[in-house]
Amino acid sequence: MCAAMSTCHSFTKYLKTMINGHGDDSYHYQQKILSNFSSNVYPQVDHTGLKSRLRCCLSGIANYPEPEPFGLESTYARSYHLPEGSLCMTNGATEAIYLIAQAFRGSRTAVLQPTFSEYADACRMHGHQLTSFYTLDRIPDDVRLVWICNPNNPTGIAHDYERLVELIEQHPQVMFIIDQSYEYFTLKKLLSPLEGVGFPNVILIHSMTKRYAIPGLRLGYVTARPELMDHLRAFRMPWSVNHLAIEAGQYIFDNELPRKHPLPEYLEECARLRAKLQALGGLEVWPTDTHFMLVYLRSGKASALKDYLANEHGLLIRDASNFEGLSPGFFRVCTQTPAENDRLVEAIGLWFAQ
Amino acid sequence: MCAAMSTCHSFTKYLKTMINGHGDDSYHYQQKILSNFSSNVYPQVDHTGLKSRLRCCLSGIANYPEPEPFGLESTYARSYHLPEGSLCMTNGATEAIYLIAQAFRGSRTAVLQPTFSEYADACRMHGHQLTSFYTLDRIPDDVRLVWICNPNNPTGIAHDYERLVELIEQHPQVMFIIDQSYEYFTLKKLLSPLEGVGFPNVILIHSMTKRYAIPGLRLGYVTARPELMDHLRAFRMPWSVNHLAIEAGQYIFDNELPRKHPLPEYLEECARLRAKLQALGGLEVWPTDTHFMLVYLRSGKASALKDYLANEHGLLIRDASNFEGLSPGFFRVCTQTPAENDRLVEAIGLWFAQ
Repeated sequence: MCAAMSTCHSFTKYLKTMINGHGDDSYHYQQKILSNFSSNVYPQVDHTGLKSRLRCCLSGIANYPEPEPFGLESTYARSYHLPEGSLCMTNGATEAIYLIAQAFRGSRTAVLQPTFSEYADACRMHGHQLTSFYTLDRIPDDVRLVWICNPNNPTGIAHDYERLVELIEQHPQVMFIIDQSYEYFTLKKLLSPLEGVGFPNVILIHSMTKRYAIPGLRLGYVTARPELMDHLRAFRMPWSVNHLAIEAGQYIFDNELPRKHPLPEYLEECARLRAKLQALGGLEVWPTDTHFMLVYLRSGKASALKDYLANEHGLLIRDASNFEGLSPGFFRVCTQTPAENDRLVEAIGLWFAQ
Repeated sequence: MCAAMSTCHSFTKYLKTMINGHGDDSYHYQQKILSNFSSNVYPQVDHTGLKSRLRCCLSGIANYPEPEPFGLESTYARSYHLPEGSLCMTNGATEAIYLIAQAFRGSRTAVLQPTFSEYADACRMHGHQLTSFYTLDRIPDDVRLVWICNPNNPTGIAHDYERLVELIEQHPQVMFIIDQSYEYFTLKKLLSPLEGVGFPNVILIHSMTKRYAIPGLRLGYVTARPELMDHLRAFRMPWSVNHLAIEAGQYIFDNELPRKHPLPEYLEECARLRAKLQALGGLEVWPTDTHFMLVYLRSGKASALKDYLANEHGLLIRDASNFEGLSPGFFRVCTQTPAENDRLVEAIGLWFAQ
């Protein structure tokens, strides 16, 4: 049995209120989860080669990883034509978020909401004066830091590239923290790492988790100009990235795993799923620029639907009601295979028919 | 080739000055390292079963680990008869150190020196007013936090149990952070997790890295009474412990890997190595209560000896001159197999004969 399954539930429940609810929480359910729509991890990655590599590298667990994975950082930085020192690998994108919040401790900070809760959580932990804003065109006055998730979680919306660049140029006193964890899942134009390094007031967050489906290994990275990265590095602990995550990063670089990333077809399937959910009648499905979508239940609670789908059908969705500004009717769905998506639509239909 | 090897050396050198030198830095040398005396990781662990388990669990990399490994924490807490919530698994003992420094941000803090540099580094990062002290009997006045490594790195000395308990009781206003990373490597009496939880002013740090030889996976834990742990948990990020570290923790619990831990024989071999080094004439070998020892070179620099041993003999020692209060002649050696220990003594003898 996997260790993660032997959870003490009452204790978990207590602590969950502290660290907030997230997706991929199948450990809450006795029922085996057959399809997981709850996290935004890419579902069609072939891990055969990666797993072979990791099997070969297992002896490396007996040695310390580099205090910071400088070798892997140089490799990735060169591939993006970035100056040395402008890329920092982290223990998942989450470490990047907390590191940035810590490095700008006590700042006046605005988060574009609704979005991933960790930006605000990390800033609260590090004594920021926190405000929320809801449209890019209304950046609050006198803030030092602005967090933007692009494409955004949970809405799936990518901001207009030209408008974003204009805002960055118009607000040189504001540091723009742009989390591009979903950058591989949209056809809309985003800032490249090289463009990001071109601005003195941009820090980009990147995730290996979603694109390569390795959330269990914990690997992400930050890119920004070297002066900014030096400031971030002054706040990081050694050995935060484990040996197998480093090896996976190198394997992915060497092999461009998976070579095939049929994004247009995947987004077409996403559009098909949207249309089928919309056709059920009881739902409002938000537009999206990526592979996941926000859905609003016209009556009832997303938490009840989530429990029903998990317990009765083994399907896991993301209750999105704990995102700031979202009401109890919201949930999030990440596109899976056509067969799985059909099963989800059917199961929600059965719930409506109850 | 392992990713860790492809390091850009000039950049590494620059950053090393920021994160300080540590042991197990074989990536600095072109020469293949045949024997590693530089880290205090237990060298005789049989990983056969653990590696089989990790091979089986590799599919789990495609799922998020629990935000905090509650299941594994409950398992370990129960085995020590600890109340629920009094044990927290971390991304190596290093995360525990930084978490504690963060949770007591800005405190007046004293570190018993010379010792592992991360306590002071973490406290500096989190705005502590830092002082050093050099004997347990002289705890500085008015401090809120005291860090003690027990057994201590790099000296190998374990403090007298009764004296330590007396100090904890005499200073109820001081929080004692006791890093017991080397607790499995001494026959001297130490605080058990249960005894630690009995004190309102004790936090114990534990490491899986050294005992089970898994520094590459990153797994450690903290024990303290639940009120204290709640305070620490308020400062931790989610998903800091990766899936394979969690699985390894469960495997080790299930199998008590390695069943055989012949500590008395190992410490006898340590005493034999001490005597042989002392007999070389040019060295002063400090007494130790554990499996590693501090050695002082009567003339010359430890850094030169280290380079010679690595380049000419493929043997890696720990230059200990960057520990606070230690001069350039100090190095640290961790006991390996008798044959390896003999090779080290012989190679140092050849260096003296040059």
